[in-house]
Amino acid sequence: MTKEHIQEHFSLLQEEICTALEQIDGTGRFCQDFWQRAGGGGGRTRIMQNGALIEKGGVNFSAVFGQPPAKMLEALRLPPADFFATGLSIVLHPFNPMMPIIHMNVRYFEMTNGIWWFGGGIDLTPHYVVPEQAAWFHRQLKVTCDRYDAHFYPRFKQWADEYFYLRHRDETRGIGGIFFDHLNTEQTGKTKEELFAFVKDVGWVFSPMYAYLAMLNRDLPFSERQQKWQQIRRGRYVEFNLIWDKGTKFGLDTEGRIESILMSLPPLARWEYNFQPEPGSPEEQTLQLLKKGINWIEFSPLELSRIV
Amino acid sequence: MTKEHIQEHFSLLQEEICTALEQIDGTGRFCQDFWQRAGGGGGRTRIMQNGALIEKGGVNFSAVFGQPPAKMLEALRLPPADFFATGLSIVLHPFNPMMPIIHMNVRYFEMTNGIWWFGGGIDLTPHYVVPEQAAWFHRQLKVTCDRYDAHFYPRFKQWADEYFYLRHRDETRGIGGIFFDHLNTEQTGKTKEELFAFVKDVGWVFSPMYAYLAMLNRDLPFSERQQKWQQIRRGRYVEFNLIWDKGTKFGLDTEGRIESILMSLPPLARWEYNFQPEPGSPEEQTLQLLKKGINWIEFSPLELSRIV
Repeated sequence: MTKEHIQEHFSLLQEEICTALEQIDGTGRFCQDFWQRAGGGGGRTRIMQNGALIEKGGVNFSAVFGQPPAKMLEALRLPPADFFATGLSIVLHPFNPMMPIIHMNVRYFEMTNGIWWFGGGIDLTPHYVVPEQAAWFHRQLKVTCDRYDAHFYPRFKQWADEYFYLRHRDETRGIGGIFFDHLNTEQTGKTKEELFAFVKDVGWVFSPMYAYLAMLNRDLPFSERQQKWQQIRRGRYVEFNLIWDKGTKFGLDTEGRIESILMSLPPLARWEYNFQPEPGSPEEQTLQLLKKGINWIEFSPLELSRIV
Repeated sequence: MTKEHIQEHFSLLQEEICTALEQIDGTGRFCQDFWQRAGGGGGRTRIMQNGALIEKGGVNFSAVFGQPPAKMLEALRLPPADFFATGLSIVLHPFNPMMPIIHMNVRYFEMTNGIWWFGGGIDLTPHYVVPEQAAWFHRQLKVTCDRYDAHFYPRFKQWADEYFYLRHRDETRGIGGIFFDHLNTEQTGKTKEELFAFVKDVGWVFSPMYAYLAMLNRDLPFSERQQKWQQIRRGRYVEFNLIWDKGTKFGLDTEGRIESILMSLPPLARWEYNFQPEPGSPEEQTLQLLKKGINWIEFSPLELSRIV
């Protein structure tokens, strides 16, 4: 299996997901921009703005190659060799605060010296955490993971908890999901074909999950107060992506196209000084659930009382 | 002159500036939060929200000490020793898009091994660049600098151009101003007393400058389109502060109080995918002026044609 094969798959997956998202949204349509990277390669960025459901969303395909930035080689302790990286990256910001923000990414990296790995993940950032939906979301991911390895879900769920974490606020970005990186045969005991099959499944589970979450939440009524809270949570999303996210850093370090890298930022975000939700409010309940280590699949009122 | 003396001055300067800003604003009042840092020291944060002129503004005093973060010692190639840092930091976001965002900071750093320096700066981020006001602003700063050393203004003006720069967009944050760091006797040939006098003057020039800019701009009429542009420019401000700003990094690395560190973020910021101002519009003119190396004091139509 060649890198061209994987790149081709991610490119087709972009098509499939954009078609599905236009159907889910109803009225929104993706615009498309091709871009080229001075150092080698480029991408195809698809953006939807002001749809019926999606206020701003991006589905980014890219395939870049060339000399890796020195910083990256140092951080990963890699010997110098040319790199190739291809991936698909999605972030969707809905209008309705009762509908969660979703993120999905699949990626493949290799070097001319034979090093290769897959990475990726899906995570959910509800403005208001609904434990039943969080449990459902995690169950879907577990089923997908379990088809390949019983260790995948627990390991990648914990990895997501660690990764999608705003250390400066001791707050998770949302209810997590799965996150994985540097997956190769050495790390997992799986062949490249098996790992690629797993990554394909992660890509394919995305659209049906989003469709279901949209069905549940897209038409719920909401107030100005809830919209303001949504803007505050979007502010946290900006903080995560600009301070901690390694994908954003990789994009900046490799001098990718800036508008494609920052398509993940929300349309409108708010920072109020020291905002504290009212005691007992749904906003406060959500904050209390933005913690690492919650077993969402087995979530129960008991689990809740343990956390809060 | 002891560190306590400098700390005391910055603390009094906070009082003076807050009093002045309440007078300038008219109706807005500062609230106050004291905070303590686990590693040593703390601060006094003053915030104004929803004033008549200022939508959100912070005037932060802090004095922290203890063991410096390993990262910082490495980056600055400093021998390990306890540190002490005190400073005053201001960011004001106005309601009116015709009124600029302003930032001012003065700071003092020392270590128990005898290393010390002053740092600071003032810079202006107009949503709409008005060359005459930019020239006036830079002239004020030049006059302040020239009282101490004829090299200060050109050096610190260039430093501000380099510092307040969004590399990922090849765009300056605003029209710059002055920025300086690690100023000590070795660097400048000035005594500690002289450098402290200079830093005091930088602090004192702030309020009158802001008062004048407010007088010119605060009551100008504005449209929804201009307000939207303001939100987009505020998005750039967020990008700068979270990706590039060393003060924010220092705050996060030393585990300062997060709401005090991030008080600089605007109340409401917007990211539109690939927003391009209309050709010939005032927004496009402003973008064309967000460049390094503009001689604002000698700014003329000729200079403009050279840049654009």
